[in-house]
Amino acid sequence: MTRVAVLNGPNLDLLGSREPELYGRTTFAELEAMVREEAGRLGVTIDWFQTNHEGAFLDQVRTLRGKVDGAIINAAAWTHDNLAVRDAVLAFPAPFIEVHLSNIFAREPERRHSVLADRAAGFLCGFGARGYVMALRALVDQLGGR
Amino acid sequence: MTRVAVLNGPNLDLLGSREPELYGRTTFAELEAMVREEAGRLGVTIDWFQTNHEGAFLDQVRTLRGKVDGAIINAAAWTHDNLAVRDAVLAFPAPFIEVHLSNIFAREPERRHSVLADRAAGFLCGFGARGYVMALRALVDQLGGR
Amino acid sequence: MTRVAVLNGPNLDLLGSREPELYGRTTFAELEAMVREEAGRLGVTIDWFQTNHEGAFLDQVRTLRGKVDGAIINAAAWTHDNLAVRDAVLAFPAPFIEVHLSNIFAREPERRHSVLADRAAGFLCGFGARGYVMALRALVDQLGGR
Amino acid sequence: MTRVAVLNGPNLDLLGSREPELYGRTTFAELEAMVREEAGRLGVTIDWFQTNHEGAFLDQVRTLRGKVDGAIINAAAWTHDNLAVRDAVLAFPAPFIEVHLSNIFAREPERRHSVLADRAAGFLCGFGARGYVMALRALVDQLGGR
Amino acid sequence: MTRVAVLNGPNLDLLGSREPELYGRTTFAELEAMVREEAGRLGVTIDWFQTNHEGAFLDQVRTLRGKVDGAIINAAAWTHDNLAVRDAVLAFPAPFIEVHLSNIFAREPERRHSVLADRAAGFLCGFGARGYVMALRALVDQLGGR
Amino acid sequence: MTRVAVLNGPNLDLLGSREPELYGRTTFAELEAMVREEAGRLGVTIDWFQTNHEGAFLDQVRTLRGKVDGAIINAAAWTHDNLAVRDAVLAFPAPFIEVHLSNIFAREPERRHSVLADRAAGFLCGFGARGYVMALRALVDQLGGR
Amino acid sequence: MTRVAVLNGPNLDLLGSREPELYGRTTFAELEAMVREEAGRLGVTIDWFQTNHEGAFLDQVRTLRGKVDGAIINAAAWTHDNLAVRDAVLAFPAPFIEVHLSNIFAREPERRHSVLADRAAGFLCGFGARGYVMALRALVDQLGGR
Amino acid sequence: MTRVAVLNGPNLDLLGSREPELYGRTTFAELEAMVREEAGRLGVTIDWFQTNHEGAFLDQVRTLRGKVDGAIINAAAWTHDNLAVRDAVLAFPAPFIEVHLSNIFAREPERRHSVLADRAAGFLCGFGARGYVMALRALVDQLGGR
Amino acid sequence: MTRVAVLNGPNLDLLGSREPELYGRTTFAELEAMVREEAGRLGVTIDWFQTNHEGAFLDQVRTLRGKVDGAIINAAAWTHDNLAVRDAVLAFPAPFIEVHLSNIFAREPERRHSVLADRAAGFLCGFGARGYVMALRALVDQLGGR
Amino acid sequence: MTRVAVLNGPNLDLLGSREPELYGRTTFAELEAMVREEAGRLGVTIDWFQTNHEGAFLDQVRTLRGKVDGAIINAAAWTHDNLAVRDAVLAFPAPFIEVHLSNIFAREPERRHSVLADRAAGFLCGFGARGYVMALRALVDQLGGR
Amino acid sequence: MTRVAVLNGPNLDLLGSREPELYGRTTFAELEAMVREEAGRLGVTIDWFQTNHEGAFLDQVRTLRGKVDGAIINAAAWTHDNLAVRDAVLAFPAPFIEVHLSNIFAREPERRHSVLADRAAGFLCGFGARGYVMALRALVDQLGGR
Amino acid sequence: MTRVAVLNGPNLDLLGSREPELYGRTTFAELEAMVREEAGRLGVTIDWFQTNHEGAFLDQVRTLRGKVDGAIINAAAWTHDNLAVRDAVLAFPAPFIEVHLSNIFAREPERRHSVLADRAAGFLCGFGARGYVMALRALVDQLGGR
Repeated sequence: MTRVAVLNGPNLDLLGSREPELYGRTTFAELEAMVREEAGRLGVTIDWFQTNHEGAFLDQVRTLRGKVDGAIINAAAWTHDNLAVRDAVLAFPAPFIEVHLSNIFAREPERRHSVLADRAAGFLCGFGARGYVMALRALVDQLGGR
Repeated sequence: MTRVAVLNGPNLDLLGSREPELYGRTTFAELEAMVREEAGRLGVTIDWFQTNHEGAFLDQVRTLRGKVDGAIINAAAWTHDNLAVRDAVLAFPAPFIEVHLSNIFAREPERRHSVLADRAAGFLCGFGARGYVMALRALVDQLGGR
Repeated sequence: MTRVAVLNGPNLDLLGSREPELYGRTTFAELEAMVREEAGRLGVTIDWFQTNHEGAFLDQVRTLRGKVDGAIINAAAWTHDNLAVRDAVLAFPAPFIEVHLSNIFAREPERRHSVLADRAAGFLCGFGARGYVMALRALVDQLGGR
Repeated sequence: MTRVAVLNGPNLDLLGSREPELYGRTTFAELEAMVREEAGRLGVTIDWFQTNHEGAFLDQVRTLRGKVDGAIINAAAWTHDNLAVRDAVLAFPAPFIEVHLSNIFAREPERRHSVLADRAAGFLCGFGARGYVMALRALVDQLGGR
Repeated sequence: MTRVAVLNGPNLDLLGSREPELYGRTTFAELEAMVREEAGRLGVTIDWFQTNHEGAFLDQVRTLRGKVDGAIINAAAWTHDNLAVRDAVLAFPAPFIEVHLSNIFAREPERRHSVLADRAAGFLCGFGARGYVMALRALVDQLGGR
Repeated sequence: MTRVAVLNGPNLDLLGSREPELYGRTTFAELEAMVREEAGRLGVTIDWFQTNHEGAFLDQVRTLRGKVDGAIINAAAWTHDNLAVRDAVLAFPAPFIEVHLSNIFAREPERRHSVLADRAAGFLCGFGARGYVMALRALVDQLGGR
Repeated sequence: MTRVAVLNGPNLDLLGSREPELYGRTTFAELEAMVREEAGRLGVTIDWFQTNHEGAFLDQVRTLRGKVDGAIINAAAWTHDNLAVRDAVLAFPAPFIEVHLSNIFAREPERRHSVLADRAAGFLCGFGARGYVMALRALVDQLGGR
Repeated sequence: MTRVAVLNGPNLDLLGSREPELYGRTTFAELEAMVREEAGRLGVTIDWFQTNHEGAFLDQVRTLRGKVDGAIINAAAWTHDNLAVRDAVLAFPAPFIEVHLSNIFAREPERRHSVLADRAAGFLCGFGARGYVMALRALVDQLGGR
Repeated sequence: MTRVAVLNGPNLDLLGSREPELYGRTTFAELEAMVREEAGRLGVTIDWFQTNHEGAFLDQVRTLRGKVDGAIINAAAWTHDNLAVRDAVLAFPAPFIEVHLSNIFAREPERRHSVLADRAAGFLCGFGARGYVMALRALVDQLGGR
Repeated sequence: MTRVAVLNGPNLDLLGSREPELYGRTTFAELEAMVREEAGRLGVTIDWFQTNHEGAFLDQVRTLRGKVDGAIINAAAWTHDNLAVRDAVLAFPAPFIEVHLSNIFAREPERRHSVLADRAAGFLCGFGARGYVMALRALVDQLGGR
Repeated sequence: MTRVAVLNGPNLDLLGSREPELYGRTTFAELEAMVREEAGRLGVTIDWFQTNHEGAFLDQVRTLRGKVDGAIINAAAWTHDNLAVRDAVLAFPAPFIEVHLSNIFAREPERRHSVLADRAAGFLCGFGARGYVMALRALVDQLGGR
Repeated sequence: MTRVAVLNGPNLDLLGSREPELYGRTTFAELEAMVREEAGRLGVTIDWFQTNHEGAFLDQVRTLRGKVDGAIINAAAWTHDNLAVRDAVLAFPAPFIEVHLSNIFAREPERRHSVLADRAAGFLCGFGARGYVMALRALVDQLGGR
């Protein structure tokens, strides 16, 4: 059975209460539920993870090596300049899709760059919570799960 | 019935024969067919357009004003610096999703910027032909067509 | 009799319906009428032209060589970086005045530069439709038409 | 009766003798006369001012608050980087038009920027002494004086 | 009773032994005592926190949401470029004052910028340990505690 | 008896009427009164000065040499790039504290830099009129006046 | 028989009358004649093309795919920043030589860069009309036509 | 007896399995063994440490203060921009040598800068695992251990 | 008889007491005496001027037009970016020599540029008070006074 | 009889053995022979020179002044930033053509600029050894030798 | 027997007398002796070379091609921008280690870049004379001499 | 007896014949004679040197160490970026004055910077041949020769 990791970076746990005009009103728990529901439909397993600790993120990436077939990554604020996160992801042997809730191109200049995007199998942003579901479907497609 | 315009910029008609390692082997006609098929499933009408002429693109954008409910735009090489295209799109009163076949963040520096992205209702790239279908579904979702 | 060309670049035909808070509510047809009315008062002939096609603009500039005594140019989005338009204008043997409806200095950074301005006989912006009339009067003055 | 201030910055008193190929041969006194003559025609009062002293300029701007209906400002060399002048003008509650005798876009790079232009009701340059008259007419138009 | 959080970033625990010519000889414990003493005088409660762990800092910021009336933040080295810290602080619903022990403008170029300052209710630096006390008083004033 | 100079730069005399959403509604006279009142409490003499004339500011700085024990400086618009003001202050032999009414880090990019800050004994901004009182207390503390 | 395309960009049709001190006095028709004469000597066929329309240029490049053995390209003003032209040329499967009439390195900074040059089989400029003949000979040499 | 700390930053634990063409096939455990073996030869004690957690790294640096005579630091991805790591190292009172397994000058631009190097007693890179042994010998030499 | 103006900018009156390690211990009065003594030897008249007021400097430059044969200018802090001073000097019809007491190339980056130097008949710096005497001799030589 | 100098810069003597995929397999001796053979056909004399010593290059340029009618210059690595070579060439009174074996626009960024090109009578690169022959023919044409 | 070249660039012969606080007090002759002594221990031959003449350096690099098994290069001031030296080294077919006596990262900005480092088999700096010995050992290791 | 070295860089031997509108018509031999004549008047010995060879310049600088009391240096084109020349001059233990014949601030941007100037005892340019004599007098003054 196809296994997919969903890796969420710092402050995403605040979803729903943090700047809702930017990130929407869906809570983080609802987001997870949406993803798991779609995973059920697609017949794939989800390994859901969120942390505010860079080190925990790096540790998790390596724990997942060889255990999942692909990943959906929203590195949040680490996206823009964190090379340690980039290094961990470069060492991750499965394809991943980068996703952001908000349209990062409509934000401050320092948020319009991603240190992960050049290695992603696909990139999408601005679709809110729906973007995770789109990413999951596309990843499963790419993995031949469909 | 929901109507969606798909606007394609220069050289996209070469799809399938131009740098296939970058853009894939799906031809432009096959891409159109895929989109129309999905549109059929979703019950929406497609207004498909491609041109190599900037002026024709601008003319088309204004012809579509008030005639479609949303758009999918792949402005190709115009994406990166064409302000006339930006002006036309800013004057377009319906939401649009920006899509690129290749991962523009893995390409030359001058291709990593879009003059449209900050106004898009969503942005996705790197999914090849599948990206158009993803964009169509997401747009229809946003338009309440589902 | 003094002949003056008025050359309008891309998207100006949308005047009145496009971002009216920026460009005003005068339509493009009303703008032309205002200019022609003033031309009548000043006793000069107007050659009015608008296109969304760069090539048509270049062709028109050369058609006008030797046929008009001066020009008023609003190259719109081409103003900021189009070197082909600059080349055509450099090859135009009569004086021209550059005009913009909006105050380009109050807009996005990439719109605050003009590739034509250093060769203009005069430059004005921010006066809306009135700016065309001001430019016409000043040009006629310079041409000794008054 | 409509009252208009004309505020002139440093070295403008040298007009006519300073770099005439750039600024023309009209003297500063003749410029004032031209403006006053046009003001007479338009039925408006002129408050004419020139200084080489930044502080005197700032003092004058605040003296004029509430006493004039609009202003024409040529801040000369202060135009390009003087934030104190910008602050004073931002605190000036009436509309103003920025004018320059020479085409500042055809000059050294450090002269192609204005710290006032983004707040101006209109901007014009390169028309020599005539530019002041054009600005006066446009300002009176905007103030509904016509 | 007014409650104030004091949030200290990495390496501040070394205060007194680390580069004393820059940060002074007051120890971190003495700093806390000074703040608590002043808080006693002002009749406010202090929630004192220091960590070298970015994730712990983010977690703490969200724990404090709704529990304190304001904050004093010295994010130390994270000040200059840490967007995750910025995100957490942007999601913090109470006013905060940014404080630095040393004069950051007299240091290396990369330390002269703060990713928090534009959102602060006030900013002060260079006053050593006294700066915390100044910030506390100002915050209490702003909160109407005085 | 400790003597403190308070030096105010251009346009500060407009306080209360100029952009109140940015600078507050306290007038300049009220600000002076607040500072003098606090000075009375602290038992120090105030030498209050404001000018719109750069030269007058420079002259004043040198007049004060040897006559005051410290200074509070708000150089307003001169803060950001005026090297003559910097030179005068470098030649001033007593410590000074830099203060700004508004949070300069939340303003236009060209206002986020100070040519004085690296030499200040302390820097604070964003506290409105209260910031002057905070600076006075801190300066008196540093001078051992307390 | 070897077939060579010669592709000319915007404004080249003005050759001879446009800035002759820069481009020389040879007319565009004479240039074509020179090239055809040399082609006759070398026994190759010429496909001569000029347009001011970007879209027509792109269309022509694709029309020529598989029909010519090589190309000589002078993209004129499009040379410096037109990515759509670059894309079309990248999709052109035969070698091409880039040629410019004037020495582009002796011109304005924005003209000293070419978006085509890194893919050219050879580059030459500054030889006026003779440069086309040199390019033709070199291309024929490379194609083994000699 | 001379004591030397070896501090390893994020992702180094992946050594041997992560991008082996860049970092070599020696595992992290083998690297530690090599260093300990050489330390045995030189008669020095090794304090070996690796973490993916920035905070743990900072905590360790301060734990080691006064307990070791020198350090070998490979801060990995933190090398390039982490000011908190820099602060901790600046507060470390013993000499350190900076080492990298790969040649950082042959990598992406953002990896060619180190925020630690200007304070290092020596810097070496590109020697793979051998570099740690070289650094250990040089450090012991400097400490007079030989 | 040859007449030479010596124009001194802001803060130069502090000479001898301001940063003596940089500017030397000669006072401003002594500097004037040295210049006048040399002028006596050379048989030329000196018009000595110093001001801290930009406007007074500009006024003086124009007062001197036609009254002196050349000038020695030390614009001090205005040297580096004051365009009003540049404009006044450009309008000054006699040759001038630019002089600085300190070596401006050994100072902060923003002091290594002069807005006057490209128009000077000669430039010298770093010779302290002696530099004025050197400049006077060179100017008199150039004026044919020797 | 027309005399032409061919000046070759550093490392060109390695031709054929150095990076042949970039510079081709023709040796430096073969290159010289090709040029001399063409010169024989054209009836011109060749003064062939190569050096790795900047000073020897400068000396040679001045030795040739007045002795040759034109030059072909390949300054190799000196091309990109050597101002002494530029100065010597600027002082060379005959026309020269700049030639490079490889396409410098397809190489590292620092090799895409030439300090000589703006003064060249023509520029060509990317044609390998053939480029020298092309340059010789063009130069002889320009000199009227044909 | 393994042969190693040691190539020293300009001014290194001054070692011991030039800026000893930066480069140490070991003379250049002592440095050579240290290297030769270590070479004796390792059983390798040393080809020692120093020159102030760029051309002589280039000539030497090519003389050594095929005659040595590896090199240690300290190009001194040429390190930072000399492309001719880079070209020669790129054409050198054996591995080399780059070494600098001082820590180049603790020096002026223009010395923190090396045009050779990306091609080096290893890089080290800041170890003074000892660095040459470290480099020799590492090179011999790499060459399998140990 | 005071001994002064005069060090001249590349192409200065062409003086009088090279770009005379920039460098004047005095020949290099006449320049030397002027300097020697003044030296005779001042009672100092001159060590005159010119070379086009960087290495010879470096060698000469070290030959002169301890043999002269000061130097006048015109490094010509090496002035702007040659770090080897800078290194040699930094190792030169006597004061030197930097001189240029032309006004380097009125030339191309890359000539407006000097890598020597921050270490010079004085800097002058734009005085032509007279500048050498001025420098000699100033240097002798500084050396106490007068």
